[in-house]
Amino acid sequence: MKITVLGGDGYCGWATALYLSKKGHTVSIVDNFARRQWDHELGVETLTPIRTLAERLRVWQKLTGHEIELFSGDICDYDFMASVLHDARPDAVVHFAEQRAAPYSMIDRKHAVFTQVNNVVGTLNLLFALREIAPDCHLVKLGTMGEYGTPNIDIEEGYIEITHNGRKDVLPYPKQPGSFYHLSKVHDSHNIMFACRIWGIRATDLNQGVVYGTMSDEVALDEALINRFDYDEVFGTVLNRFCAEAAVGHPLTVYGKGGQTRGYLDIRDTVRCIEIACQNPAAPGEFRVFNQFTEQYTVLELAKLVQSAARKMGLAVTIDHLPDPRVELEEHYYNAKHSKLVALGLRPHLLSDSLLDSLLNIAIRYRDRIDSTMFLPRVNWRQARNDRHKHVGEEVHK
Amino acid sequence: MKITVLGGDGYCGWATALYLSKKGHTVSIVDNFARRQWDHELGVETLTPIRTLAERLRVWQKLTGHEIELFSGDICDYDFMASVLHDARPDAVVHFAEQRAAPYSMIDRKHAVFTQVNNVVGTLNLLFALREIAPDCHLVKLGTMGEYGTPNIDIEEGYIEITHNGRKDVLPYPKQPGSFYHLSKVHDSHNIMFACRIWGIRATDLNQGVVYGTMSDEVALDEALINRFDYDEVFGTVLNRFCAEAAVGHPLTVYGKGGQTRGYLDIRDTVRCIEIACQNPAAPGEFRVFNQFTEQYTVLELAKLVQSAARKMGLAVTIDHLPDPRVELEEHYYNAKHSKLVALGLRPHLLSDSLLDSLLNIAIRYRDRIDSTMFLPRVNWRQARNDRHKHVGEEVHK
Repeated sequence: MKITVLGGDGYCGWATALYLSKKGHTVSIVDNFARRQWDHELGVETLTPIRTLAERLRVWQKLTGHEIELFSGDICDYDFMASVLHDARPDAVVHFAEQRAAPYSMIDRKHAVFTQVNNVVGTLNLLFALREIAPDCHLVKLGTMGEYGTPNIDIEEGYIEITHNGRKDVLPYPKQPGSFYHLSKVHDSHNIMFACRIWGIRATDLNQGVVYGTMSDEVALDEALINRFDYDEVFGTVLNRFCAEAAVGHPLTVYGKGGQTRGYLDIRDTVRCIEIACQNPAAPGEFRVFNQFTEQYTVLELAKLVQSAARKMGLAVTIDHLPDPRVELEEHYYNAKHSKLVALGLRPHLLSDSLLDSLLNIAIRYRDRIDSTMFLPRVNWRQARNDRHKHVGEEVHK
Repeated sequence: MKITVLGGDGYCGWATALYLSKKGHTVSIVDNFARRQWDHELGVETLTPIRTLAERLRVWQKLTGHEIELFSGDICDYDFMASVLHDARPDAVVHFAEQRAAPYSMIDRKHAVFTQVNNVVGTLNLLFALREIAPDCHLVKLGTMGEYGTPNIDIEEGYIEITHNGRKDVLPYPKQPGSFYHLSKVHDSHNIMFACRIWGIRATDLNQGVVYGTMSDEVALDEALINRFDYDEVFGTVLNRFCAEAAVGHPLTVYGKGGQTRGYLDIRDTVRCIEIACQNPAAPGEFRVFNQFTEQYTVLELAKLVQSAARKMGLAVTIDHLPDPRVELEEHYYNAKHSKLVALGLRPHLLSDSLLDSLLNIAIRYRDRIDSTMFLPRVNWRQARNDRHKHVGEEVHK
């Protein structure tokens, strides 16, 4: 298939582009390098020293013979977005090209507005470009499990049958997102559902859980292909951050009681889920929702798993319960369905001791690059402005 | 109370500002005159010859002794928005300041993006300004009944109790909006609900039905205070449009079968609902939703009411069923609850023969101003671009 990956220089996008290329698909990447820019803004670097995208693509082609075409630009620029569809003529567009960090969206008003405008307008542009240029192309959109929040009933995959006052309907599952970023994804979901209805667009919304891991078969081929490993409080996902903390002897930073339950998945399952979605497209006019995760954990369970794995490697690790900077339930019911991707062939890589060892080993290997001032939360949901500059110059572990 | 009306130069906003001022509240208006600008863009005028806002306010003060302060500017400009709250220090902010026409949002990509960015960013700015400057001020936000769509179960007021797999929760009512405009209101609702949760903002979301009527006691005081009467296919609400059509002998333009059922209310009830909401504020942190309409009608029922009233006045009126330019069910179940405002004291003005006579008389009085090329729908939901210019120069009834 011809597949265009929007945001292909980012964490999930890069792993996805290589995986799909390896599997024989004709892959192109669209990126404006915003993710690298946010690192500059926040004064942080990925733990793993990633190369420029140009070099990554050169090495990939040299090693595998597969060329990945690059379209460098911003999908919020409609003329650019349209030109990509004109040139690439994809069968599927995989859309990762959004600002994806909840804390980033909660820094202050400008970051909240940027996140919502960037994500909503990029997706609107894509929908209009599909309608005008590639109406049969399948949109594979990355949503988030965070769109649902933590309701006191089971979370279904996108829709729920409701019986009410003796009548029945299947309706979009109610959403209770927990940040301006998560809200932007809810806005996207509503916009895409509508575009499917009025224009017959075919779309799959992948409500993804928290992704962990860095290594996939493809990026492991060469040091130059290494993927991001974000460990900071803004862009670092929790398991990666715990491993980086363990590697430098920093207490694991659990927010509140740590009873927050979420869905998680290995990056190797992310890339496979994307392929499954592409190979089994939604019907014209269908807005299909898959919950894309493989296991549920509480944050404290993850901390204990990392603590235990680290101890076996001779690392003494403690667990700190910090005041929760987010506004969220610290203990709650959580049971989210996730059977649709499995039914289509996903064979999950479950979180294992060996995977934790591998993650810890990467963290240890690059521990000299860790800036431990980046672990502690500085973005407080309860404040309308969070000055991230005030801690600059504090303790740096090097 | 001190009440600031955002969008106070528009149709609902103007009637509301005068009503609240008459009732002794200290009223200020915020407006950027966008609504007048859209008339220029579309080449249409309100049926009633409205005066400049400056003149309206001068006449109001002369007649009643009540001064209404004007803040001229755009709430998408945060510094302006913040300065208004600093200066006006309102107890309640009534937020009408959005692009409110579904067809306008469906013209093309630019109008869709404009509508969503304008409405979402304006509301985000207001939320941040409330949090920073006036955390106890009550936000009274205009939503729309169109956020719900037409589900096959009863529509509740904002929330629904769902029993699912043996567990129970009260969740936000699922939304199925029918245009990029209606979507922008759904985005707003989610953003406001979140701001209430994290910051303790107090907010009332008024999901308003289709408003009809022009005269209220206040605007009737003087010709210079006359309110808008929009009859065109883009900004004209359906009952007003039918009356304008009847006045010039144009067939009433029913879309499809006309079985589309919606909630309706008299502009005199709009203004009273706003006052009720202001006088009974939401609690800190509460996101309260009222369905603001008084009666349900199908479009065809309204057409027949207008036809009958017009016949009694000697006007021969036919009904045309045009292909529906919207993507919507032309016949469907519809039962929306609307008891909360009544419980707080609303005494509805139900649609009556005398009101229809009054509407028709206004339309007849200003019939020389009617451009009948503006009746027919030119914005088709199924198209991504609708060129509204192509009909310019066609038949004009003058």
